[in-house]
Amino acid sequence: MADFKRNVYLKSADLDTVKSEYFKIFKENFLEEESVEVIHSLNRVTSESVFAKVSSPHYNASAMDGIVVRARDTFEANDINPIQLKLGVDFHYIDTGDDIPNDFDSVIMIENVVAIDDETVEIFEAVYPWQDVRPVGEDIAVLEMIVPQSCRIRPVDIGAMLAGGVTHIKVNKRMKVGIIPTGSEIVDPGANLKPGNIIESNTRVLEALLENKGMIPHRYDIVRDDYDLLKVAIEKAVKENDMVLINAGSSAGSEDYTSMIIGELGKVYFHGINIKPGKPAILSSINQKPIIGIPGYPVSAFIIYEKVVDPLINQFYSQQDEKQTVKAKLSRRVMSSLKNEEFVRVKLGKVSGTMIASPLNRGAGVTMSLVRADGILRIPKHIEGIEAGTDVDIELMESRGTIDHTIVSIGSHDIVLDLLTDELNAKHQGLYLSSSHQGSFAGVMAMKNSIAHIAPSHLLDEKTGIYNISFIEKYLGKGLFSLVKGVKRKQGLYIKKNNPKNIKGIEDLVRDDIVFVNRQKGSGTRVLLDFLLKNIEISNKDISGYQREMNTHTTVAAAVLSGTADVAMGIYSVADALGLDFIPLGDEDYDFIIKNEDIDTENIQAFLSVLESETFRKKVEAMKGYQFEQTGKIIKV
Amino acid sequence: MADFKRNVYLKSADLDTVKSEYFKIFKENFLEEESVEVIHSLNRVTSESVFAKVSSPHYNASAMDGIVVRARDTFEANDINPIQLKLGVDFHYIDTGDDIPNDFDSVIMIENVVAIDDETVEIFEAVYPWQDVRPVGEDIAVLEMIVPQSCRIRPVDIGAMLAGGVTHIKVNKRMKVGIIPTGSEIVDPGANLKPGNIIESNTRVLEALLENKGMIPHRYDIVRDDYDLLKVAIEKAVKENDMVLINAGSSAGSEDYTSMIIGELGKVYFHGINIKPGKPAILSSINQKPIIGIPGYPVSAFIIYEKVVDPLINQFYSQQDEKQTVKAKLSRRVMSSLKNEEFVRVKLGKVSGTMIASPLNRGAGVTMSLVRADGILRIPKHIEGIEAGTDVDIELMESRGTIDHTIVSIGSHDIVLDLLTDELNAKHQGLYLSSSHQGSFAGVMAMKNSIAHIAPSHLLDEKTGIYNISFIEKYLGKGLFSLVKGVKRKQGLYIKKNNPKNIKGIEDLVRDDIVFVNRQKGSGTRVLLDFLLKNIEISNKDISGYQREMNTHTTVAAAVLSGTADVAMGIYSVADALGLDFIPLGDEDYDFIIKNEDIDTENIQAFLSVLESETFRKKVEAMKGYQFEQTGKIIKV
Repeated sequence: MADFKRNVYLKSADLDTVKSEYFKIFKENFLEEESVEVIHSLNRVTSESVFAKVSSPHYNASAMDGIVVRARDTFEANDINPIQLKLGVDFHYIDTGDDIPNDFDSVIMIENVVAIDDETVEIFEAVYPWQDVRPVGEDIAVLEMIVPQSCRIRPVDIGAMLAGGVTHIKVNKRMKVGIIPTGSEIVDPGANLKPGNIIESNTRVLEALLENKGMIPHRYDIVRDDYDLLKVAIEKAVKENDMVLINAGSSAGSEDYTSMIIGELGKVYFHGINIKPGKPAILSSINQKPIIGIPGYPVSAFIIYEKVVDPLINQFYSQQDEKQTVKAKLSRRVMSSLKNEEFVRVKLGKVSGTMIASPLNRGAGVTMSLVRADGILRIPKHIEGIEAGTDVDIELMESRGTIDHTIVSIGSHDIVLDLLTDELNAKHQGLYLSSSHQGSFAGVMAMKNSIAHIAPSHLLDEKTGIYNISFIEKYLGKGLFSLVKGVKRKQGLYIKKNNPKNIKGIEDLVRDDIVFVNRQKGSGTRVLLDFLLKNIEISNKDISGYQREMNTHTTVAAAVLSGTADVAMGIYSVADALGLDFIPLGDEDYDFIIKNEDIDTENIQAFLSVLESETFRKKVEAMKGYQFEQTGKIIKV
Repeated sequence: MADFKRNVYLKSADLDTVKSEYFKIFKENFLEEESVEVIHSLNRVTSESVFAKVSSPHYNASAMDGIVVRARDTFEANDINPIQLKLGVDFHYIDTGDDIPNDFDSVIMIENVVAIDDETVEIFEAVYPWQDVRPVGEDIAVLEMIVPQSCRIRPVDIGAMLAGGVTHIKVNKRMKVGIIPTGSEIVDPGANLKPGNIIESNTRVLEALLENKGMIPHRYDIVRDDYDLLKVAIEKAVKENDMVLINAGSSAGSEDYTSMIIGELGKVYFHGINIKPGKPAILSSINQKPIIGIPGYPVSAFIIYEKVVDPLINQFYSQQDEKQTVKAKLSRRVMSSLKNEEFVRVKLGKVSGTMIASPLNRGAGVTMSLVRADGILRIPKHIEGIEAGTDVDIELMESRGTIDHTIVSIGSHDIVLDLLTDELNAKHQGLYLSSSHQGSFAGVMAMKNSIAHIAPSHLLDEKTGIYNISFIEKYLGKGLFSLVKGVKRKQGLYIKKNNPKNIKGIEDLVRDDIVFVNRQKGSGTRVLLDFLLKNIEISNKDISGYQREMNTHTTVAAAVLSGTADVAMGIYSVADALGLDFIPLGDEDYDFIIKNEDIDTENIQAFLSVLESETFRKKVEAMKGYQFEQTGKIIKV
């Protein structure tokens, strides 16, 4: 275990400072150039400009299928006095692209020629000299610049360079980037997991990002937290690469030798950047090569790649690092620290014609927020936060689907929703259901604020026993929204296999030896729990763990599995899938709230057709705890 | 040469019809799936959805560097009554990511702990149970869907899948696409060129497009126009691939055997699509595999790839084929045929805050228009054209630079402009000069209509002998624009090496045995010519070829080189580079018109600094025919 020798971020700085001062060090570092065949130059970056070596066309070429003539022979032709021309003397047949023979200068398209016999044609119109002839260099003139230097070669560039007689070009070498995963706690994917082990995934993400960028990533084996081993690994990587990324070992935690070793081998310029996530980065160099310590949390690692590594590579190749942005309205208030520039992942959705940016979970460890994100909201330092409804610029990430083809779902989660997503993707080319699991009531509010297209919901009206409708009436009014019936599902208690503490029902939650874990406020499951507790007159104050909240069925089930709780409440299908015991408490309706005006849109119609489809029903029925009753029925509220 | 057996587009159809009827044939064609390692799954498309196999974290993990405690031991701690805890009994030191030991439940961050001695710490605040603990599944819960089916794997997905314990996934196989170049006239790049030869570049562009798309292109050797050879080639390609593209041989030209052979081996569904460019495409199938005849003109080939091949591949993978679009104002009127849907390449530029789309040369053979284009304007059938100033949607192509980092130049061309582009790219990361060579006067008009940032110009005022300024005054008014002095350059006559026709000067242009080729109306060179002719009282009616227009110095020089003209007028540097004789007629000023309000922008300042730079001057001085005089001087008009 650790002691008190802890790193302090001695030289932290703002991102802009890092980019101006650290990047400057490598301004004069030029990448070597190499000659490549044009046909193998795709996505490479030119190190010098490319000029045409021959013209295209390099001869005077017919632009039409037709006959080639001398313009002066045609001057007197007109509708009333056609002129006859003799094959081999006055004309030849010619195809598009054919060379214009000597002594001829113009082409008449075949549609304007009347054949009299095998040797003779008639024409009805005069042509001007060089009509329908593509002169030498019409497309590309010899010596014309085709591609300037520092440009990435696209497919169309390859075509133009070849057409311009260029077969080889000079490009910058692809940058070799070494990636060292470090940490005694990390293990390779597929290894047996012990508590405290973390599956190494960051360097695989970095590898993939670099590959898409056209670089040559080289990932080394995991180095455990050992000063000597790490030093050897860094020295080797520096020797073999143009840049080195060292993953983790860059936090201020006690196991951090990275900055110490770099300090010995080269120079640390900054330790810590005033951004969130991504703070504990190390910016340094060894032998004039950039050596960057990448933080261990997945989101931090990603942000440091995007905000530091990627722009630094761009500098080496003189490429712009501008990202595409989109204007959006912020769905809810985002708070921010004054000390740091913050990068908040957001999900985008176009609802009722307005682009909405909904902030995602901000934890640096939350990998899934990267998977779900469409873009990044930047909040500058010295700003306390941004209010809901503010117009913001969102930097686009490589997202799952185009925004117009995304159905935004906010509300309660059920595995059924995953199956719907799956069927939608498979059956409706390019349509994507993006769901945010915030609980039923958050879904109702999302519909009210027009930030979602659908809200999956299972909110029980205690008085009537009817699900969802009274909540729509109360919070969303009448006449604007519909309830689309989904599935009936079983709710109950999750208990460890074989029920070691002999829990019999909800009344046992108050037992002293029982620890409960709850769902978050506003979730349908919690509403149901509170209703059941009230029925048997139990006060939630008497339940140990009632205050501990988790956001999904699966997370509370995982808590029971791992033993941090003895009991939780959730749907049957999850208990069944995870091998937990289950005490059923009743059936409930899991439905979808949809705006009336959206129902006839292509996207929602696709959603409804999948909901009622046979393949979807079969997949759901393969799981336990669901019934179909009125599924797909639309109730106007 | 050709005869009258010509194909007719028997079954041509609109693009929408083709996409619904032809694509339908392959709707049930499923790509095989295969299992790949997650670490090698980048950019592959999932054939089934991916669910987490383990939770992440898979144990309860400390979220902080600090000490791990039992919450109940801390309940009475506050600022006034700190509590002391004993190492090994009441607490352990713990690092971020460490497992929470049995019997402990909460973490206190190290900053909130005061060490009393090696064994004892003091705390000043109560913690709640599970504070700063990341519970099992907080990031990814076991069984959670990570990636749905039919999704392309991004770097962040790889991270999430690995973290979720997934090491292998099912993906669709990469599609094998055979590409057959055909035509007796085409030759491989690097071959000796004879008149009528065309360098084969289309299939290399197709290869690159497919590569970027993640497919496996397989290009075959060139097949000459021979029925039997082509048939064998097609049969082989069909056997070895999932889809076959046959380039050229699809025009209605006489050398077209492609559709006949496909008709024998399979079925031709459509021959001809009502689009421009791209009309002569063949949509067919052999053995249930798509066989597509791609037209021979480079732009047509590109459009058929973009509008037919790419969307068809998307259908196979159930991917959306939506392209990103941008709103822009059309810079000038575009005419369109009523019979065809047209695709016009445009250049985009943001000038004075407005996104402007300027149509590029529309010839199907003009490869360079693809290189210069930023996007495509679609003009539906039955529309005669679109007026200047209309708001249009432009489908974005993979363009050279982001629009905000592009300086749009419209006006006269000089090699000097290429050198400026080059220097800008090299010195100002990501800044790009996009120049359209339309002549000096078109540049003045572009400035008037706010569709360009700079206009290179060499317009001589006959009365004063001063360049450019009076044109700015007359057409752009006073007080709004500046003239930035560029270079002085030599103008003169281009003549074949050794002057075979013994041309002595401009007075020889009227000789009967001399054919001239002119520059387009509005070019500075033509203005100068007309001025010189007037001086010696020659009428342009007496000059053979005066009406034949070309757009650049290099194209008229190429005309003289290739012998379609005896003489032309242009700048010295081009004559020198191409090895032509040159009769100097005088020096002229090649300057830049810039809007006053733009001069202080970052982009224009970069342009000016390059114009005045030593490296640029050296590169220009390495060519012949230029002088530096007042270069960079800004004259407010």
